[in-house]
Amino acid sequence: MPGQLFIVAAPSGAGKTTLVSLLIGNDPGIHVSISTTTRTPRPGEENGREYHFVDVQNFREMVHRNEFVEWAEVHGNYYGTSLQWIKMEMDAGRDVLLEIDWQGAQQVRKSFPEAVSVFVMPPSLEALGERLSGRGTDSVETILRRIGAARDEMRHADEFDYVIINDELSRALDDLQSIVNASRLKYTIQCQRHAALFAALL
Amino acid sequence: MPGQLFIVAAPSGAGKTTLVSLLIGNDPGIHVSISTTTRTPRPGEENGREYHFVDVQNFREMVHRNEFVEWAEVHGNYYGTSLQWIKMEMDAGRDVLLEIDWQGAQQVRKSFPEAVSVFVMPPSLEALGERLSGRGTDSVETILRRIGAARDEMRHADEFDYVIINDELSRALDDLQSIVNASRLKYTIQCQRHAALFAALL
Repeated sequence: MPGQLFIVAAPSGAGKTTLVSLLIGNDPGIHVSISTTTRTPRPGEENGREYHFVDVQNFREMVHRNEFVEWAEVHGNYYGTSLQWIKMEMDAGRDVLLEIDWQGAQQVRKSFPEAVSVFVMPPSLEALGERLSGRGTDSVETILRRIGAARDEMRHADEFDYVIINDELSRALDDLQSIVNASRLKYTIQCQRHAALFAALL
Repeated sequence: MPGQLFIVAAPSGAGKTTLVSLLIGNDPGIHVSISTTTRTPRPGEENGREYHFVDVQNFREMVHRNEFVEWAEVHGNYYGTSLQWIKMEMDAGRDVLLEIDWQGAQQVRKSFPEAVSVFVMPPSLEALGERLSGRGTDSVETILRRIGAARDEMRHADEFDYVIINDELSRALDDLQSIVNASRLKYTIQCQRHAALFAALL
């Protein structure tokens, strides 16, 4: 029984990462893809846990061998998602979740048109501004630039199947879990999970 | 904000009616359509609660005026679902649920292609046989005929978006609620519910 592919995207500050880690804690059936990156590991990061760390030369070779279902350059570093890992997990019947941005989602849909995609949004631009300021580490200029970038990102919400408004975290988690649960009840999935029942009808 | 239309179908004995009444008790946002019928009211049934009871002449006039989104003759009685009532509820932003069979579902999809349809199934034909025997009111012949009819009905499961296997009632209820919840998170629905947020992005 093949697993399903879930894509979760969000503008910075929408709380995507927290939401996804809570989902993973709740639902052992979902496996999150670990990206490959050329960025330098930060203190505490471990190779194979947060990221697969590779050098630029290696990354470029992987791109040329079409090993990534999507990849991008962000702030001078490369990030990519392994196509083989996704296929392996799905073939083993496991559901896979990718945390990527809208450009990545566009690339992934070309390889996996059946992927279930979810866009997480803040309740308002004001709330997003407050959350980004709340970190207390960035200048006003940086925050305004991020709000602008978030707004641009959110204009792509219409490319996603589902939208979750992350106003209250526990509610947003219920929403995400509902989407995952419902996706597992699709006719094509159930037909494979309950093959004996469906065979008995023929 | 327009509501959504949910269709729930099942073979006899799959537990659809119990499941739907539990959902309604859980979720005040869902309104179940009350069918119009020419069948004689049973003791305890009230006009406008279980059914709208009308005579055959009246029913035929309603058919000619295209007042039904779907209608059928079952065991010599007519049953129909009011198109106007569905539209009225949905326009008022309420979600509507129809308990109908696969033929009815086919008719309804012509008027409401966006309807979310769910097919409820027993875990096996054996379990269905046990449930139908469990009522203790029918002959073996009647039970076998019903199992055959249920099997024919279940061959149409592939026309539905979702399949729920009603093995354990509380689990099946969670499944149905997940489908309803997820449907309310679709981009098109969220875009209308959170109009101010989406307008702020333009």
